[in-house]
Amino acid sequence: MFEQILERVRQHKPLVHCITNYITTNDCANIVLACGASPTMAEAEQEAAEIASVAGALDINIGNLNTMTVAAMHQAMEAANQHDVPIILDPVGAGASSYRMATLRDFFAKYHFAVVRGNVSELLAVGGAASNTKGVDAGAADAVTEENLEERVAFFKQLSAKLGAVVSVSGAIDIIASPERAYLCRNGHPMMSCVTGTGCMLSALTAAYCGANHDAILEAAAAATAAMGVAGDIAYRKTMEAGQGTGSFRVHLMDAISLMDTDILNGGMNIEIR
Amino acid sequence: MFEQILERVRQHKPLVHCITNYITTNDCANIVLACGASPTMAEAEQEAAEIASVAGALDINIGNLNTMTVAAMHQAMEAANQHDVPIILDPVGAGASSYRMATLRDFFAKYHFAVVRGNVSELLAVGGAASNTKGVDAGAADAVTEENLEERVAFFKQLSAKLGAVVSVSGAIDIIASPERAYLCRNGHPMMSCVTGTGCMLSALTAAYCGANHDAILEAAAAATAAMGVAGDIAYRKTMEAGQGTGSFRVHLMDAISLMDTDILNGGMNIEIR
Amino acid sequence: MFEQILERVRQHKPLVHCITNYITTNDCANIVLACGASPTMAEAEQEAAEIASVAGALDINIGNLNTMTVAAMHQAMEAANQHDVPIILDPVGAGASSYRMATLRDFFAKYHFAVVRGNVSELLAVGGAASNTKGVDAGAADAVTEENLEERVAFFKQLSAKLGAVVSVSGAIDIIASPERAYLCRNGHPMMSCVTGTGCMLSALTAAYCGANHDAILEAAAAATAAMGVAGDIAYRKTMEAGQGTGSFRVHLMDAISLMDTDILNGGMNIEIR
Repeated sequence: MFEQILERVRQHKPLVHCITNYITTNDCANIVLACGASPTMAEAEQEAAEIASVAGALDINIGNLNTMTVAAMHQAMEAANQHDVPIILDPVGAGASSYRMATLRDFFAKYHFAVVRGNVSELLAVGGAASNTKGVDAGAADAVTEENLEERVAFFKQLSAKLGAVVSVSGAIDIIASPERAYLCRNGHPMMSCVTGTGCMLSALTAAYCGANHDAILEAAAAATAAMGVAGDIAYRKTMEAGQGTGSFRVHLMDAISLMDTDILNGGMNIEIR
Repeated sequence: MFEQILERVRQHKPLVHCITNYITTNDCANIVLACGASPTMAEAEQEAAEIASVAGALDINIGNLNTMTVAAMHQAMEAANQHDVPIILDPVGAGASSYRMATLRDFFAKYHFAVVRGNVSELLAVGGAASNTKGVDAGAADAVTEENLEERVAFFKQLSAKLGAVVSVSGAIDIIASPERAYLCRNGHPMMSCVTGTGCMLSALTAAYCGANHDAILEAAAAATAAMGVAGDIAYRKTMEAGQGTGSFRVHLMDAISLMDTDILNGGMNIEIR
Repeated sequence: MFEQILERVRQHKPLVHCITNYITTNDCANIVLACGASPTMAEAEQEAAEIASVAGALDINIGNLNTMTVAAMHQAMEAANQHDVPIILDPVGAGASSYRMATLRDFFAKYHFAVVRGNVSELLAVGGAASNTKGVDAGAADAVTEENLEERVAFFKQLSAKLGAVVSVSGAIDIIASPERAYLCRNGHPMMSCVTGTGCMLSALTAAYCGANHDAILEAAAAATAAMGVAGDIAYRKTMEAGQGTGSFRVHLMDAISLMDTDILNGGMNIEIR
């Protein structure tokens, strides 16, 4: 599965323009490089449109908004939509503050997104459902489980139709949904939530994969999630074998993404289509 | 000693709201996660109060001030004081510029802090004594030594009374002082000062420990310092054994915090009460 | 070669004031510490001049401009020139947007730089030649090769004369040029371009070396480039031996800089003078 998706990234080295938060921006730039693409994190209002218009993909992450970055995001998103550059939106902490919700409503009213990617609490909030976000972490009550899986898949397929975007939801079971089709992925380890920015990194990785696969956005988004999950599995194994902690886990995770190819991905992923 | 302090962090997973500097914010978020708490680094004026009011603790770090973050800090600190959320203040580079001193004076006039934590040059400057800060690093002439220990302990106990806050001072000998009681900690290694942000990380860790131990702020602050010192000892040992440098030391340090528990802490710490 | 250059950094521990981008600022601070100097990343307009005027060197990096940081840069550069503090300029992404080019033109009109350091696309753009920058990465067509080496060396010697600054150009073959003399360095590995910020880190390292060697700016800049190249060679070897990826490479790179001395440098470097 996902033949060519990863290879195209290393061949085409798409320019991935990220306007993200300053907490995890270094990790985002590094994961874009690790998968073979080229990051640029320009966020000045004076240049955001110019750079977005020549990018392969635009990654917009609202993890740390301020007046200046929001202005740059608007410039970049308008240019991206004009030039058919796919936008990946990460609604970090949606539901945690009214400022974030108001900003998101404004974004959805004005721009078209290729993928909206976040944790389940964030995507529930985006979908107008009750959610239990805890700062930027998903609330335990919102988790996708084997019991509510059917219902959640239906909800996110509908949300995908409503938004006109692929909806990519991370958690113990990941759901990557278009209106008709959803990939379910059961890879990764809870230790991933003990390192900041694994969600932001996945959004940047999704942007890189989409940037080299404009004609296969759903598959690119699913492959990115699967790759991150498999990398999490590998990193967890290495960390446990060596009796290490979360600092080493983070390094192993980046190593695994930089060494990832279609064979490793297919050998490790546990994926299902509904 | 410090029974329950660390365990409560992993049980209650307090939300730790950090408004800090962009140099070390990733490390701060990661250490909060490593000890079992949940970080949020929100610093937009539009949401800082809303988020601080539901946090377990608020970490304010002046390592890289600008007009926007200072405004957000005011909003967050006012909300924190109203909702009895303990504030940990890290006066990074106090004494290095008149802008920082003026900002600090304004903060002390308006808000109540649970803990003020910094290096000795910073705390001397906060206390109105002559200090020899070098940028954001402590000046050698200010160091706490066995010779001036008595005098320094008395100074910081008085400063604690004056500020109405626990005073937590890092160095070769750490001093964590209330007006009546001071913990002295002789753990850690000079290599910690060869990695940026170990001070900022300790402030974030202190906030996480305080966030789960509102009824024991002095002990929580002392336990955080002791845990960081013991982690520094462990990390230094691993680095030397493998012939590594400061890059690996930093990874080992995060590993040690993520693996820290009361047994490891009590087995490694060298602490004294005066 | 380069006797005393590295040792002076560890002896004098110069204060290195960096106004850089928030993507790689943590790595820049860490490499300044790793080589034995003391970083401060202050970028508030209110304190930039005060801090720059007492620094050993000032590192200005335009990787992520905004209105506030540009204002702080002006304050800091004016103070640095007044107090004979050498300024190292990293024109990140020169050529990628008109905003960056306009900012650079303004800088060159107003201030004197000790060193201008970047990749070949950036320095070609600074020199007014056609360049093929891709975001913040050098374009393949611009690369310095054995074929165009003569021509490139002549171009950068002329550019050095025109700017009145040492010109330090990174790539497969590094060129560090004064008007009369150029060091060519053939160390390092392409994996360095798979980690974000290796260029920014080299600029910060150059500032640290220059900060302790005001009387030997060309040699200090060349030694910094050679040290980074040798560290890249060491890190690549360790990464390959252990079957690791770019996450580990980054850690090994920092380790190698923190363990670097004149012997290791001279044992590993492949340098030539023209």
